[in-house]
Amino acid sequence: MTAREIESYFDIEPVAEEMLETPVPVVDLDVAERNIRRWQSRCDQLGIANRPHVKTHKLTGLARFQVDVGARGICVQKLGEAEVMADAGITDILMTFNLVGMPKLKRLETLARRTGISLVADNADVVAGIAAAGRSAGRAIDILVECETGAGRNGVQTPTAARELAELIDRTEGVRYGGLMTYPATGARSAGAAFLTDARERIAAAGLETRVVSTGGSPEMWSDEGLEVATEYRAGTNVYFDRSLIEVGACTLADCALTVRTTVVSVPTPERAILDAGSKALTSDLLGLPDFGCVPRLEDARLYTLNEEHGYLNISNVDRKPKVGEVLEVLPNHACPVSNLFDRVALKRAGRLLGLTRVDARGMVW
Amino acid sequence: MTAREIESYFDIEPVAEEMLETPVPVVDLDVAERNIRRWQSRCDQLGIANRPHVKTHKLTGLARFQVDVGARGICVQKLGEAEVMADAGITDILMTFNLVGMPKLKRLETLARRTGISLVADNADVVAGIAAAGRSAGRAIDILVECETGAGRNGVQTPTAARELAELIDRTEGVRYGGLMTYPATGARSAGAAFLTDARERIAAAGLETRVVSTGGSPEMWSDEGLEVATEYRAGTNVYFDRSLIEVGACTLADCALTVRTTVVSVPTPERAILDAGSKALTSDLLGLPDFGCVPRLEDARLYTLNEEHGYLNISNVDRKPKVGEVLEVLPNHACPVSNLFDRVALKRAGRLLGLTRVDARGMVW
Repeated sequence: MTAREIESYFDIEPVAEEMLETPVPVVDLDVAERNIRRWQSRCDQLGIANRPHVKTHKLTGLARFQVDVGARGICVQKLGEAEVMADAGITDILMTFNLVGMPKLKRLETLARRTGISLVADNADVVAGIAAAGRSAGRAIDILVECETGAGRNGVQTPTAARELAELIDRTEGVRYGGLMTYPATGARSAGAAFLTDARERIAAAGLETRVVSTGGSPEMWSDEGLEVATEYRAGTNVYFDRSLIEVGACTLADCALTVRTTVVSVPTPERAILDAGSKALTSDLLGLPDFGCVPRLEDARLYTLNEEHGYLNISNVDRKPKVGEVLEVLPNHACPVSNLFDRVALKRAGRLLGLTRVDARGMVW
Repeated sequence: MTAREIESYFDIEPVAEEMLETPVPVVDLDVAERNIRRWQSRCDQLGIANRPHVKTHKLTGLARFQVDVGARGICVQKLGEAEVMADAGITDILMTFNLVGMPKLKRLETLARRTGISLVADNADVVAGIAAAGRSAGRAIDILVECETGAGRNGVQTPTAARELAELIDRTEGVRYGGLMTYPATGARSAGAAFLTDARERIAAAGLETRVVSTGGSPEMWSDEGLEVATEYRAGTNVYFDRSLIEVGACTLADCALTVRTTVVSVPTPERAILDAGSKALTSDLLGLPDFGCVPRLEDARLYTLNEEHGYLNISNVDRKPKVGEVLEVLPNHACPVSNLFDRVALKRAGRLLGLTRVDARGMVW
């Protein structure tokens, strides 16, 4: 299907510029659209499926737009996100997090009856749980075997272990072996590709087809290294980008679609301005950066400390000192958790504020 | 008024133990009640007013309980928190954050018509805004002058500047000078007391009465140092305490009322377990600690990394390794922002799970 005008994907509550509260994330839809289309083009050129991770924006509107631009489906990290996205009409959802526990398995059963949900597993307990849900739902749920290829997080540790888990899935009623999934460590994608290729071959030798090899990550999105084995790519942060992705060279400031609009509430000394955006707006995520965000308009200012509601801006080296009441835009280190902190975000297009839209998949901890 | 049974202050949705989703904060009401009563007793003994900061729990139920146990009123950081608390019947609310910007001042006007709201200011712009709201509301709004006594955050810088701002407030229609407020730097309360005493005397010399001298902070709550000048104390975290407050000696593990219940979703190696609580459940706040929380039941485990949904637990030195599906309780470094991440928290009493209650003042960024 062809995508419509991007703002038509959102319920927008109009707000006049001067009535926009701060702190508030402001999403530039022009920049987000350009990011989405550019990435879809690259996936098309590579011949791999694009499966955007919606954890970054948590907006059903952007998810539907991504699908209409060409995404195969979406990726989520939580069942609650999957439920909200299914409610919005998304029909191909991969949840890349081991689903564990009876309450969630009951909900999976319900969800599997009404939408296309697939999952991952790196151990037999997770397979058993999903299989029980699949049997109750009356359909086999696809599982990708999560492989640890250098990130040191989840995942089976060897290609042989991947084959064993694939075979277990294959012989378990209620689930179906779908393929392999990994989340790569930065810069380690070649080693990851070797692991995945080896696993796929061993699994083929056991008579099973690996239909999907799913990799992901925004930091390495422009690198072709190790991509030959992949059939699909999951990236999330690249919809908005952020300061951490400028730092690793994945984007420039002009590609960053989300900033947090904040108001100067105090300038107690010539060295310090206090913003109304603290860790409850920007998070304490550093991601290796030396401070908590930057103010592109005040290059020489440093956001050196956050309390929950206060941002401490060192303005010692700033020529034109900000004043109380002045509005500044902060580029956050990490866009994803910022979306999770706001019930609503502001949308703008063509330099104009459109209004506020609800972050429908915010707070889906379950 | 006398406090009723603590659980009667909450709307509770009953949940069976085995149906409780994770990750979820679990609040032990027995421990919270003991913390609340012990602190109220200390304030009573000191002869100072107790004004709990509700940012930590964000629960109208606990706020009403604190007032019924003897608190003078409550403290909030955001106007949205004040609105929710006023809706719940709290009539004495101090907002300790400079209110700036037209949308918020309009809301303040509405709020001032229906409840007792007072605020702080450390500059003339903030005074002018609040005064306009007070005039529109037809009542003078009390303002405390915020003084910087060592924390390096907001606040006028000298006792003379405090006097000047107090005089400005006094001669401005729509506001009334209420007193002084500070948030002390750890261990610097004596210097702070000297500042506040000096300011109070200068303000008295200008013919103005300082009715309130409000100080606060949980880390120094048990110290008498510099308290002679204070008429009221704002503390928030002490309702739940947390790992950071054990670290500074303000409490013991037995005083900690909030833990985050989490499920082991993967044990990919004998050295590592992965929990379903990441930074979206625990935040990235370190507060000087070396890792992101602790698991009291597994003393030798270390929660060394968080991603948004994953907690990385080093179990190298743990004798009995946790298994997939096992439920663990994490004590967070910092309780306050955890409350802000969950729409609902679980309540327990007498060792029994009561169910879930809505965190009514969660997400009040505005």
